[in-house]
Formats: sequence, C-alpha cells, structure tokens
Amino acid sequence: MSNSSGKTFRTTSFGTSHGKAIGAIVDGCPANLDLNEEDIQKELDKRKPGTSKITSPRKEADKIEILSGLFNGKTDGTPICGVVYNKNQVSKDYEGIKNTPRPGHGDLGWIEKYGNYNYNGGGRGSGRVSIGHVIGGAIAKKLLQETYNIKVISHVVQIGNIKTSSTDINEIEEKVQLNDVRCCDKEAGKAMEKLILEKKAEGDSVGGIVETIAVNVPAGIGEPVFGKLDGDISKALMEIGSVKGVEIGLGFDVATASASEINDEFYYKKDKILTKTNNSGGILGGISNGMPIVTRIAVKPTPSISKNQNTIDLSKGEDCIINIEGRHDPCICPRITTVSESTIAMVLADHMIRSGFIHPNDLDKMKK
Amino acid sequence: MSNSSGKTFRTTSFGTSHGKAIGAIVDGCPANLDLNEEDIQKELDKRKPGTSKITSPRKEADKIEILSGLFNGKTDGTPICGVVYNKNQVSKDYEGIKNTPRPGHGDLGWIEKYGNYNYNGGGRGSGRVSIGHVIGGAIAKKLLQETYNIKVISHVVQIGNIKTSSTDINEIEEKVQLNDVRCCDKEAGKAMEKLILEKKAEGDSVGGIVETIAVNVPAGIGEPVFGKLDGDISKALMEIGSVKGVEIGLGFDVATASASEINDEFYYKKDKILTKTNNSGGILGGISNGMPIVTRIAVKPTPSISKNQNTIDLSKGEDCIINIEGRHDPCICPRITTVSESTIAMVLADHMIRSGFIHPNDLDKMKK
Amino acid sequence: MSNSSGKTFRTTSFGTSHGKAIGAIVDGCPANLDLNEEDIQKELDKRKPGTSKITSPRKEADKIEILSGLFNGKTDGTPICGVVYNKNQVSKDYEGIKNTPRPGHGDLGWIEKYGNYNYNGGGRGSGRVSIGHVIGGAIAKKLLQETYNIKVISHVVQIGNIKTSSTDINEIEEKVQLNDVRCCDKEAGKAMEKLILEKKAEGDSVGGIVETIAVNVPAGIGEPVFGKLDGDISKALMEIGSVKGVEIGLGFDVATASASEINDEFYYKKDKILTKTNNSGGILGGISNGMPIVTRIAVKPTPSISKNQNTIDLSKGEDCIINIEGRHDPCICPRITTVSESTIAMVLADHMIRSGFIHPNDLDKMKK
Amino acid sequence: MSNSSGKTFRTTSFGTSHGKAIGAIVDGCPANLDLNEEDIQKELDKRKPGTSKITSPRKEADKIEILSGLFNGKTDGTPICGVVYNKNQVSKDYEGIKNTPRPGHGDLGWIEKYGNYNYNGGGRGSGRVSIGHVIGGAIAKKLLQETYNIKVISHVVQIGNIKTSSTDINEIEEKVQLNDVRCCDKEAGKAMEKLILEKKAEGDSVGGIVETIAVNVPAGIGEPVFGKLDGDISKALMEIGSVKGVEIGLGFDVATASASEINDEFYYKKDKILTKTNNSGGILGGISNGMPIVTRIAVKPTPSISKNQNTIDLSKGEDCIINIEGRHDPCICPRITTVSESTIAMVLADHMIRSGFIHPNDLDKMKK
Repeated sequence: MSNSSGKTFRTTSFGTSHGKAIGAIVDGCPANLDLNEEDIQKELDKRKPGTSKITSPRKEADKIEILSGLFNGKTDGTPICGVVYNKNQVSKDYEGIKNTPRPGHGDLGWIEKYGNYNYNGGGRGSGRVSIGHVIGGAIAKKLLQETYNIKVISHVVQIGNIKTSSTDINEIEEKVQLNDVRCCDKEAGKAMEKLILEKKAEGDSVGGIVETIAVNVPAGIGEPVFGKLDGDISKALMEIGSVKGVEIGLGFDVATASASEINDEFYYKKDKILTKTNNSGGILGGISNGMPIVTRIAVKPTPSISKNQNTIDLSKGEDCIINIEGRHDPCICPRITTVSESTIAMVLADHMIRSGFIHPNDLDKMKK
Repeated sequence: MSNSSGKTFRTTSFGTSHGKAIGAIVDGCPANLDLNEEDIQKELDKRKPGTSKITSPRKEADKIEILSGLFNGKTDGTPICGVVYNKNQVSKDYEGIKNTPRPGHGDLGWIEKYGNYNYNGGGRGSGRVSIGHVIGGAIAKKLLQETYNIKVISHVVQIGNIKTSSTDINEIEEKVQLNDVRCCDKEAGKAMEKLILEKKAEGDSVGGIVETIAVNVPAGIGEPVFGKLDGDISKALMEIGSVKGVEIGLGFDVATASASEINDEFYYKKDKILTKTNNSGGILGGISNGMPIVTRIAVKPTPSISKNQNTIDLSKGEDCIINIEGRHDPCICPRITTVSESTIAMVLADHMIRSGFIHPNDLDKMKK
Repeated sequence: MSNSSGKTFRTTSFGTSHGKAIGAIVDGCPANLDLNEEDIQKELDKRKPGTSKITSPRKEADKIEILSGLFNGKTDGTPICGVVYNKNQVSKDYEGIKNTPRPGHGDLGWIEKYGNYNYNGGGRGSGRVSIGHVIGGAIAKKLLQETYNIKVISHVVQIGNIKTSSTDINEIEEKVQLNDVRCCDKEAGKAMEKLILEKKAEGDSVGGIVETIAVNVPAGIGEPVFGKLDGDISKALMEIGSVKGVEIGLGFDVATASASEINDEFYYKKDKILTKTNNSGGILGGISNGMPIVTRIAVKPTPSISKNQNTIDLSKGEDCIINIEGRHDPCICPRITTVSESTIAMVLADHMIRSGFIHPNDLDKMKK
Repeated sequence: MSNSSGKTFRTTSFGTSHGKAIGAIVDGCPANLDLNEEDIQKELDKRKPGTSKITSPRKEADKIEILSGLFNGKTDGTPICGVVYNKNQVSKDYEGIKNTPRPGHGDLGWIEKYGNYNYNGGGRGSGRVSIGHVIGGAIAKKLLQETYNIKVISHVVQIGNIKTSSTDINEIEEKVQLNDVRCCDKEAGKAMEKLILEKKAEGDSVGGIVETIAVNVPAGIGEPVFGKLDGDISKALMEIGSVKGVEIGLGFDVATASASEINDEFYYKKDKILTKTNNSGGILGGISNGMPIVTRIAVKPTPSISKNQNTIDLSKGEDCIINIEGRHDPCICPRITTVSESTIAMVLADHMIRSGFIHPNDLDKMKK
C-alpha cells in the first residue's frame, strides 16, 4: 500500500480511526523553519468535528505530539513525526458493519483486497485519516508562508443547489470565518446551514463544492509533461475521501467556451508580466504563471446515513438492509476545507523545493 | 523535468514537435505479450491530424519504429523504445512566436523556467508530444486486453453547448466510429461537426467534454490513501494538454445530491456482488469495485487561433498584437479521445501489475 | 532528506538519539502476516548495548510499541508504525562536541548541510538510528520466513587481524550464539574478545568484517540492469553507519582469479539446476540464482574514542584537541550483525513482492 | 524491469546487444548546458572494444545520435535521447548458447525470470548495455565540469596479483593514457598487459581492481540515513556487470585498523576546513566532506572463455560441456574504467542538483 505523498517534501501517513494513534512522518522539510506543536494544532482544530451543530457531534481532542525533527524550536532537516493518540473511540457502533459493507463507502474494497479489514470506525478508510494530511499540510503551509508569503485558503462555494456569489480573493481568509459553513457569502451561508440541518433531520446528507486558492505562488513551478502542477494537484485533491471531481481555473466551463473568449491575454504592468483574466487558474502548460492558483472539488454527500439502505450480508451470502448508527457529518464540506488547504500546500511545498525556489536542506542558506 | 509516468509499468517520453524524433520508452511491460508495430500504429493513426475536415489539415505520417524490447514477436521484459521520426515539420510558422508568447499556451512558462525554449511548433509543449502517451497506451491496451479482456474506450459527449444523449456502454466502441467527431449520438454528432466548422471559419475554436470508460477491470486495484486509483487517473488525465477538469462517476453532480439518492447499493447476483447503480464510476475509497470505470475530462478550446489577440513582445518589453498562423485544430476533442484512452490504459496497466493481477515479469507464468 | 528505503516494502525511519522517540513506518507489508511486538522486540534486544562487557555499558531498554497496522494479531495491509520512546539519555556528555566535530563522525557534514544540528548523542547520525532499520528488518524477516522459509543470518568473520576458519552454512545460526562476539569459531571468538578488551583499555577501538547469508531465496529476484539485487543490497549495506566496503560472493578475491577457476558451473541434481560452487554468492547478472546469498561488509573501528584527537573549534575558528567522553563500543561488529540482517531482509522482502513471489496485498491469496 | 537510474538526474536505458539500437534517455539535465554529440562520442570511444590487442577484436563503431533535448547547441531542459544503432552484430556465434547457459553469465536468470530470452550477444545482459550508462555519464560529466570543475577519473590499480604503486591524484588523468591497460604505473602496466595476453592465449581471462576518484566535489552532498552518497555510489558501481565488491576510502583495510590510526583529523588551512588524511574517501556519515571521493571496485574475470566448461543443456535436461566462441575481452578492467567514471558522474550530478548546488532547471540562473 502506498501511504506516501510527494517526492521531495514527502508525507507518509499511518494509523486508523480506532487504533492507538494516527499520524504522519514529514520528510524533506528543510532545516531552520520555526515550528512548534501549536502550528499544527491550530490546523487540526479547524479540521476536528464537534465544533458546531452542522458537523458530527463526536468530540475528538486530536492533540498533536511531535516526536522528532525539531531542535531549538526549529526544524533540523530530519523527519518530523507527528502523532495524535486516539481517545474515547466507540468501536461498538461498528460491529454491525463487519459483514455488511456500507453503500458509498470503501468497506468492500478493503475486505476483498486485504482480507483483514479493521472495520472499527472505518479503519484506515475513515475520514480521521486526514489527520495525517493536515499534519503534513500545516508544516507545508508554514514553510510556504515563511519563505514566499504564499497562502492557501479554502472556502465552500456550493452546498446542494445553493451557490455563493463571487468573492474578492483578498477577503476570503477573513470572511470564511463568519459562519460554520466556511462560506464567504453571508446570505448563501445561512441557506446552506439551513439545508444541512434539514438533511441531518432526515437522516440524510448533502454534497457541495469547495474552492481552494493559493496566492503569491511564483511563476515557474510544475513540470511540463508528466509532472504538471495541475496533475499533481488533481491527484492530491482526488485522494481526499468523498471527492469525485476536480477543476482548475474555469474547469468544466471551458467546454462551452471559445478560445477567443477565455485565452488569458498577457500584458505588461511596468516590468511585470500579468494576464488580464485568470481563466487558466494560475497554471498554463503545467507550470505556474504567477497568478492565483484556483481549484475546485466536487464533494459527495457523506455516505454514512441513518436512512435504510440495501446492501449485502457477507456472512450469510444474501441481501439485507442496514441503517448506519453513529454520529456522522450531514455535510463534510466545511471540514474538508482544511484538508484541501493541506493537500494543496503539500503539493506546492514539494514543487517549490524541486524547482529551486526553496533550498532543499537549510532555509538559512536562502538569506545569503 | 519529469518525463516518466507510472511506477511499475512506466512510460518515459521524449522529443519535440519539430526535432528529429518523438517517442517513448515503455519499461515494466512483462515478457511474452504478442506485440508488433501495427499494434501501436493503429492507435497513432487514430490520433494523427489530417484525417477529416474538422481536424488540422497538417499531414503527419507518424510511422512508429520499435527499436528494442521485442524478441520472436513478443515482448521480452526489456524496455520497449518506440520512435516516430519527424518529417516535413514547417518551422517558419513559428519564428513569430519566439518573443511573443501565445495566450492560452505554455510558451512563457517554458521561457521563464528553462531559459532556452525550442519554440518551433511549440517544442515539447506541442500536442505532438502525446505521441509518447499513445505509444505507452497502445502497449498498455494490448496488455490489458490479452490478460483480462479490459477495454478502454473514449467518446465525445459535449462540444460547446451540444450534448449527447446517454449511450449504452456496450455500443460505444462501434458507434464512436460513425462520425469524425467520435460522438455516439448521430444527431448530436452532426450538430457538433457543424459548430466546429463554424468556429474554424471564424478563426476561433471550441471546447468540449470527453468521456472514457474502462470495462472488465477487476475489483481490487488502487491503493486506499495516497495512491488511489482515481487519484492516479486524475493526475494522468489532467496532464493531457488542454484539460482543465476531471470527473469520476457522477462527478460534479454529486454536489447537488443527497446520499440517499446516489449511494450505490450492493446486491447479490448469484455469487457475484454488484451495485444497482454506478454513481461512483467503478471506484470506491480509491479501489476499483468491478463496475465500469467512468471518467470525464473538460477540454478547453485549442488556444491557437487566427483571430487577433493581445500579448507581449519580450524583445521590446511592450504589449503587442498577434494572430497565430498555422494549421490548427478548431476543436481538439475528437483527437484527444485516443490520448485519453492511452492515459487511462497506462494507469490501469500499472495498477494491475502492482496489485498482483498481472505477473510483473512473464505473462506465461499466469497460465500455470 | 531521504529517510525511506525500498520501493514496495518501504521503511521510513525517524527520530534522534536523545529526542522523544525513534522509530519507523513500515509500508507495503501485505495483510495476514501474524505479527506482534515480541517479533520486533527480540531483534531489538539483539541490537541493544549493555548486554556484555565488549559492548557499550549504556543501558537502553528499547521497548517497541506498535501504534498501527495490526488487526486481530495480524497485519492488515496498512502502514505499521513502530516506536521506541527514548529514556535516560544523558545529553550533558555531548555539549562539548557542539563546536568540535569528532574525527571519523559525520558531525561537520550535518552542521554544514543543515545548519541546525542536534548534536546530543550524535542526533540522527547516532547508531541508535539503526533501531528504525531493525523495526523494518524484523517485519521483513517474519514475512520471508513465513512465506518461503528464508533465513538471514549474520556472523563476525574478522576483528582486526583475527579471522575465523570457514563455517558450515547450516551451523551459523546456532554457533553465532556461543559467544558475545557473534563469531562461529570458538578459538577465534576468544581471541577477538581479548583484542576488543585490549582496545577498550587503551581508549581505542577496532574494526572487523561481518558476513551475512540468506538461504532459501528463490531464483529470479532482482532486475538485470538498474535495479540489480546486488546493487540494492550494496546500497543498503553501505548505508549502515561505519561500513566502508561491501562484497558479494568472492568479493575482492575475484581480482586475482581466472574465469576458469571461479565460474560457477551448472549441473542437474535430478530436475533441479544447481551450481558446483557459489563464488557468485547467489547472484548472477543481478538476479538471484537459488544458491545462498553471501555478503560481507567492512566495518570501521568506532570513531568515538577517549584518546586525544586533533580537531577544530568552530566557535573560535582554530584547531584544538578533544577526547570523547561517553560509553562507546570498542568494536561495533557484534551489534552490527543484527542491523546487517535487518537491512538484507528488507531488500529481499521488497524484491520478493516486486517479482511476484509474495502477494503484494494479502498473504491468504497465496494459499489458494 | 527497472531500467532507470537516479532520482532527479535520471537515465533510462534501453536496447540489446544485437537489436536495432541501444541507448538512453537522460531526463533532468538542466537547460543551458553546452552539449553536442562529440561530448558523448569521445566517452563512447574510450569504452568501445577493438582499440588494442588486450581488448576484444570486435569492431563496433558506436556512433551516437542525439534525437532530442538540444536547442541552439545547448540543452533545453527536455529529455535527451541518445541512440547508437547496432551494426554488423554477428548473431550466429550465439545460437549455441540458446539452451546452454554460460557459467558466470546471467543467461539462466533471464530465461527463468522472463521466459523469452534474447540470447543473441547476451541480449540485454551484454556488456554493450553499458553504452546507455556512458551516454548518461558523458552528459553528467559535462554538467559537473562546467558548473563546479568536478572531474571523475578511473584507473586500473590491480590485474591478477599485479598492483600499482600509489599515484599522485593530480597525475592520474595524464598517466592513465600512457598504456592500453589504463594503469598509471609504467612498470606495473607492462606486467599487467603481459598477464592479460597470457590469459588470452590460454583461452582464459583475469580479474582486477579499478579505482575511481572524483575531485572538487563540494562538502554537503548526500543524505545521512537512507540516501547516503556512498550508498548510492555503491549501488551504481555494483550494477556494472562483473563487479563483485565496492570500497570507499580505505575500504576493507578498516577491518584491521584502530580508530586512532584512521580517524581523519580536522584542521584549519586559513578559513578552510580540511582533513589531514582521507581514509574516509571524501564521505563521512553519508555526506561529502570536500575531500576527493575515492572508490574501488573488484572486477571479476570475463566469464566468456574458450576453455571447456561444464554446464547444462536445457533442451535435453542433461549436463553437457561448452566452450564459448566469439571475440571476448581477456580482461574487462581497462574498458570498465569509462563505465565506472560514467556511473559515478551520474550519481554526483543527481545529488548536486538535489542538494541545491546545481539549479534544477536552468544553469543560467546560477550566474545571477
């Protein structure tokens, strides 16, 4: 099984929902980055459930402990192992699914492929596994911010049929905190919250779209054939649980457009080369062009619902009905924003090092 | 620069549009697969331009020559080097773009990143580079077909605002050959062709959506965290030039759905486990589930158009206007179908070997 | 920094000598291998110091804790994270070396390359880092033994000028336990022990040669050009601290030989193909041939010695003299045997999976 | 099969002894390196046989043709494909070995592993495959020389029992050209030549030791745990056909030494830190320390000899006798010097880029 992501800035994740611990080793972060547990904790806190009525009521403390990789408050170039010890996981909820794979979940695939499936809490198929992504992402974010002031920000742009109005890119970071949905549009945010609570009441769930934007990424990262920046971003985003579609820039709207309408024209602003529009979402020919990198993901409704569903009973070899107990998110989009930010930050950190922008071993060598 | 794709079944591509040759080394194909140049030639012929009035009128013979990797008409486990020698490339068309990066193209990124840009025909940023993808894909297709009867088929489902009606998955392979657009819907195909010719007449181009389906893929390929099958497919598809969006199964339609509507419910058909619907597109939790794998890509309108466009002149440091001469495709979707098939076939071949379905060294060992 | 070893069976190591913990994630071990902490603990116990008068008197409990990857007493295909929490490390011994790099150690390289060097206990340059190797190796050994009855055994064949007489390959496992030097020759073992204690008394140390043999490896693992089995073994062995030379089979004795003397001639023993001699050490053309795999490493004398040595003081920019306090091994060979076994077991496990001998996901699928 | 070497500067090799062509794709060489076919040709000429009475009398023109990767006389950052088309290969010599694997050769491993073995000229197990190494190495050498004036030089230090006296490192490049053996010691060189010719007359062959030295490598390349510079060098050297042992610095002589005798002591020479001795061979703790990198390989006698040898006949399932016709090298050491240089140059180029010394994309960016 492959549990590593990235080539040079490389995150290797481990752990299951209800095991002893969940965490990640982040390898390839250069030395002399100021880093402490709080830098990671604040990202984990954004990801964790139980913080509002529209997320799962599960209380997960998710306290990070860094076991290695720091010396005198800074990274020292050695691998950073971050661990969250699991606590109070309630495994009894899951005994029922041992033989009855949940529709929309990967249970059956795990059973067939590995033959020894830790079904408790969905095991390593659980959304809790994204704690590893967030550990890697928090370090990547700090690295990007300290070296190039790069920021990676996610917000919810659609839940069900409710869409946001467009948002000024500079206001997202602030506005996203206005509501629990992490939507920058006040009116839409309210409607989204209402819809989510309705679905929750029905024992159902709803999908949505999350947009993630990275600003201040310099022109020149990404490799133009196999190794395109948008290729690596798409892979990373699609590997987040529940994601079924990825867009860069205009995304699927290019299908209905003519080139004369959407080609981003170049112009000089003093010595700097800019484009009049950013329909390409900051990436052309697989390489960043200095404009904001804009991505969107389609997030499916959380498959765990309490409504009756048809499935099979593997122990009996016959069809059956289940309804899934437990405390699940009626819409995962708000919490997935943090994972999406993490994911993109890891890809960017990896490419920034590999393209010669960030020193691979020692940040202090960049100051000379 | 990274010019390799895949881990075990690995294609390394080389060459530029107007250089001596373009090609690929395919490493990791097991021995004892029947293979000859015709297997690759027929795929290259599907990809090449000049075969209808809706593609570029350029005549490119694109004759494959295999330099290594075969013995007695079969693969022998050693790397297969396939080469297409370039002929009759007309470089004079491109002198003008040396200093005036084309909007919507990667020219500027190449110039800034590498500092020595072979602008002739767009160099290695050219669509001709997908010849390397097709060489790898043709071998992957043969391998998949011979071992598991897996077929990978693409068709055009949308051009501009014209969409196909839904198509029976078993009829695509036959119907896609009915028209030059590679659309299975006769009426829609006609309308698409008309739209493309209109855009051509205007000196403009139009985008579209290409769907690719793989049938007979067994349950159990793909790795569930970093290394998901849909992750690798998304990366591979997004690395095709002009692609700005990727969908698996329902794709972006999941955003507006409830779980109760789209969760694919399991049932037994005799001993076999199937799902009633295939909204997940054959992949759940990153692992194939035995249902057809369904993907869609958003393809932007070819950025090379003869209409006037604003850009910059790097030699003078000032804004300017260009119109791009040459013989370009008014819509690249029909030709991209072959590249999309190739791309997905390579990903599947790689995963089939890595998951233990296809023997990594010698196909004859599977017969025992 | 690269802290991962192997392609499919992949060990990622972390931690420093005096940090919170040291450990490894082992990714790519198939499911359904019986495994528990004791399997790893017994190997760590062979590696740890303080067990005899010829090793460092440091007492290191080195208790393994497995945080993930097991379910119902078996591996479940997910990454196995093994951790040893550091205890009672005495950092004050090392304050002196902060600015005075120890001759024969990597201190200066760490300082220059990363700029933030955790000098306590030699940080990640410490021999304690081989705990990560042993965690990976213990799992690899179990996997090899359970599937193909492969055994990997190391013994000391030379210390200083004292060499063993030749040993029957089938007796090594038993005889190596007869003395603390892990030498199969009773007389030579006594002399080695005496030499080591003399060097210890002088405040000096001595080098030696460790031989490692793997039996029951099937013919057919290894890849014949880049990826040779002996190439991967050499890399892995040379990456053990203090190793300065690697031999396969006859090793450097081939230099003085004629082909007619050393070519291993083939013959049939019933249906089985064997070689009359094993001068190639079980590997020909990069591929195993079914004979025992024989390797030797040259181990330098532990560079930490209490005799006065010349070095530099980086804080003053001038030359100086140090003598290294602490409790060091006067000869590391006996303890390195376990690391060498681990290292070779990891390489073999990786190749066994990649060559189709061991199922990549689920051992139970091999029983059918 | 893995036919790629290196992570960032990456050579993928293809082709067999008697196929259409043999060659390599070199990926990851930064743009703006002056390069032409002559740079590669001169290295191929050093490798090719037929140039003296102590090598095989085969005449192989081995003319390089570069198919891609250059623009205006410089690399452009895209993959460089170099091809040597095979000519005048005499396959009839090899029909006899189809079913009678040659002792000391990899024939049987190929047959068993891949099941479709191109035995002509030893197929991809032939020494001719090192043409791919030399293509990669020639480019690496140019890159190292142009950026850091790094030189990689090999010479023969032992044939049979004849050893050179020690040589001043600065004189090797000149003296190695004095004789066909590529030995810097005039007297020893004569004796070696005599010995080789004697073995040739007997229908036998003899082994030896080749030393390779790299000067001007800066301190700080190599990664300290998995990814050590000496680890990567050992792998690369052991992957050269016929190599059975690798030494760094003192190599196996460390076994008989005390630390007080061989620890390289540091001192200041003005501001520069040097070591009084270079017993570590320029690498400490896996990282280069700025001193010359010194390696030695044990090269076995060419296994193809005309003396009678016992082997098996696979078609009859019984033992038999062969004597190998053809025109083989009685000692491969002189020709292997070029391959060893190439191999080490590739490893160094890869590490120089990955450690931030050489810009990954564009050499001109290093001038600013």
